[in-house]
Amino acid sequence: MRLATVTVPLSGERFQVTYDITAASEADVRKRALDVAFEQTVEFPADLTPEGDILEQIVGRVEDVHPLEDREQTWRVVISYAAESAGTETTQFLNVIFGNTSIQPGVRVHSFSLPTAMAALRGPRYGREGLRELLHAPRRPLLCTALKPMGYGSAELARLAGDFARGGIDLIKDDHGLANQSFASFAERARACADAVHEANARTGYHSIYMPHVSAPADQLLERALLAKELGAGGLLVCPGLTGWDAMRMLADDDRLGLPVMCHPALIGSFTVSPTSGISHYSLYGLLPRLFGADASIFPSWGGRFSFSREECASIVAGSQAPLANFKASFPSPGGGMTMDRVQEMQTVYGRDVIFLMGGGLHRQGPDIAANSAVFREIVEKMA
Amino acid sequence: MRLATVTVPLSGERFQVTYDITAASEADVRKRALDVAFEQTVEFPADLTPEGDILEQIVGRVEDVHPLEDREQTWRVVISYAAESAGTETTQFLNVIFGNTSIQPGVRVHSFSLPTAMAALRGPRYGREGLRELLHAPRRPLLCTALKPMGYGSAELARLAGDFARGGIDLIKDDHGLANQSFASFAERARACADAVHEANARTGYHSIYMPHVSAPADQLLERALLAKELGAGGLLVCPGLTGWDAMRMLADDDRLGLPVMCHPALIGSFTVSPTSGISHYSLYGLLPRLFGADASIFPSWGGRFSFSREECASIVAGSQAPLANFKASFPSPGGGMTMDRVQEMQTVYGRDVIFLMGGGLHRQGPDIAANSAVFREIVEKMA
Repeated sequence: MRLATVTVPLSGERFQVTYDITAASEADVRKRALDVAFEQTVEFPADLTPEGDILEQIVGRVEDVHPLEDREQTWRVVISYAAESAGTETTQFLNVIFGNTSIQPGVRVHSFSLPTAMAALRGPRYGREGLRELLHAPRRPLLCTALKPMGYGSAELARLAGDFARGGIDLIKDDHGLANQSFASFAERARACADAVHEANARTGYHSIYMPHVSAPADQLLERALLAKELGAGGLLVCPGLTGWDAMRMLADDDRLGLPVMCHPALIGSFTVSPTSGISHYSLYGLLPRLFGADASIFPSWGGRFSFSREECASIVAGSQAPLANFKASFPSPGGGMTMDRVQEMQTVYGRDVIFLMGGGLHRQGPDIAANSAVFREIVEKMA
Repeated sequence: MRLATVTVPLSGERFQVTYDITAASEADVRKRALDVAFEQTVEFPADLTPEGDILEQIVGRVEDVHPLEDREQTWRVVISYAAESAGTETTQFLNVIFGNTSIQPGVRVHSFSLPTAMAALRGPRYGREGLRELLHAPRRPLLCTALKPMGYGSAELARLAGDFARGGIDLIKDDHGLANQSFASFAERARACADAVHEANARTGYHSIYMPHVSAPADQLLERALLAKELGAGGLLVCPGLTGWDAMRMLADDDRLGLPVMCHPALIGSFTVSPTSGISHYSLYGLLPRLFGADASIFPSWGGRFSFSREECASIVAGSQAPLANFKASFPSPGGGMTMDRVQEMQTVYGRDVIFLMGGGLHRQGPDIAANSAVFREIVEKMA
């Protein structure tokens, strides 16, 4: 039996999600699109759904369906949702975009617009301009590296941090594999590395910052970030795949912290691993990190040890700067096997507004890490 | 230059992760396995990694490689990791299992064992026996339904909750699309639905519980769950894809709450959508929800509107009861388009230890929802 009709108080505001849907025919894609529109809202059989406001306004509305010219059997589908279905909470906004449909093969989130309530979020606190100002680097690409390997103690990691800072690396972050292990506990490591970077800055006049990895169990996360700040961190590295997306937003938003945030892709890779399912590179590494407050988004560049294509990387750059409410543009931060001899080639796609992330590659040139880092710095200084 | 060797204080304890890796040949799979072992730990080139403890103990160790007979070009690979690499935090444990490798196509987490520190977690507070005791249902399958559709006000949802409870549905949960929207705010809805279920219980003598959906922004989550408890909730519905996995563990673990937890798959579907990447159904819907404290795990059954196979569903059942530290077995809770006439067929796979989740199907029989629910109850009473 169809459920009883009710009047739903609605503003008329709607937001859009664009999906790429694989289907056998246009009739099939229209059916699949309608399935998504129901699944993401009422999750109820169409013939039982209350008529009136719920069937007409709450159920997603298929606004546009057109074939993608460059991909067979794939259509780009725009579905609009009532702003009230997501309400004011980021968790529910994600839920409406892709909650249950994430389970369906053949549906991929391409992009989304923001309802007013999401547009009211802060987005990146620093963004490109703010981070450039903080780092006194108005034009050139920024440099980033990761403290590793796992197993090193705080003293060894701090020595590396100091070397990187003396060589002029702007952002010296923990490797995302450093958490709170016995061999380099968070508090000991963060203090030692922050001190080392500050000391190097005092000598060189550079403005490097140390960004510890603060992903932690839910009930320790905020405390850890506050401790990081107290110990002298200049920014925070967060893995939303480990903490939840909104936990990153919470840290980015907290005025007691007020620190730039880098988003790391650990455990979210599965969203882009199938070309016909999941979430696009554009949204996953471009739009979402900005919505959730990240000033920079780390991802593996084409040509390294991961499989992203040049085009996928370019789409991440597009997502990092596309109009999205009044949110600031964020920095794309390509890494994943970067080497010194690829900087020039990478710049052709990334331009100047990029944070080059080089890990192992900074150890290849010779035994003097500060000297290796200075070579890297010299290369990008010329790109200003 | 290879980095300097250090001594790492290690206990010798190791845990194992089993991956299914797609490769062109046995030589190729051995290379890929070694790549995973480095990526998940030191994330450093092999020729630069410090010799001694780090290269020998911290870098993952490929323990076994053998071809899968039923899948072409796929090998099952066991890699062990030092317990200290994950330390004592669940977020870092997930990170070691699959952090960066989630980005790689062709590597799928099959299963994992727990280091002592993870085995010390509580796991499901109730588990199968505890939930059966709470619901006074020692043998038969349990019944669950979802309050919907989105757009209904608290009064309509509470009326439905009362109907379901009068008909004998054990677990009456919010649809995962109900959050804190204007048309049915969390506090108003949770109070109204909890009251309706308590009133019905008082009349019928049944022991139904209401489980509101408490996924919320990171800084509101605990508060929302505590409010749910105060308003009379008998359990909590959590989507770890929206909140982060450990946030669910935090709620399940909190003695002020002390409530059973159901895990909902919103936004984690992308992990199983590719057969050669992501995480197995066994781990994603079986092992992980238990590690993170869920007493029941919702997933779409074969034969509904999603695409899981019968075998994949059977593997989830296996994961819900496989030995995992001293953790209790959890309830598999298949849904996703279940109808009354499929109960018998589904029981052949799920047996008695299952929570049948029927949504729309409970509205099909006729206009009296309590009577429809009673039919469902009658069917499973015979399965005791």
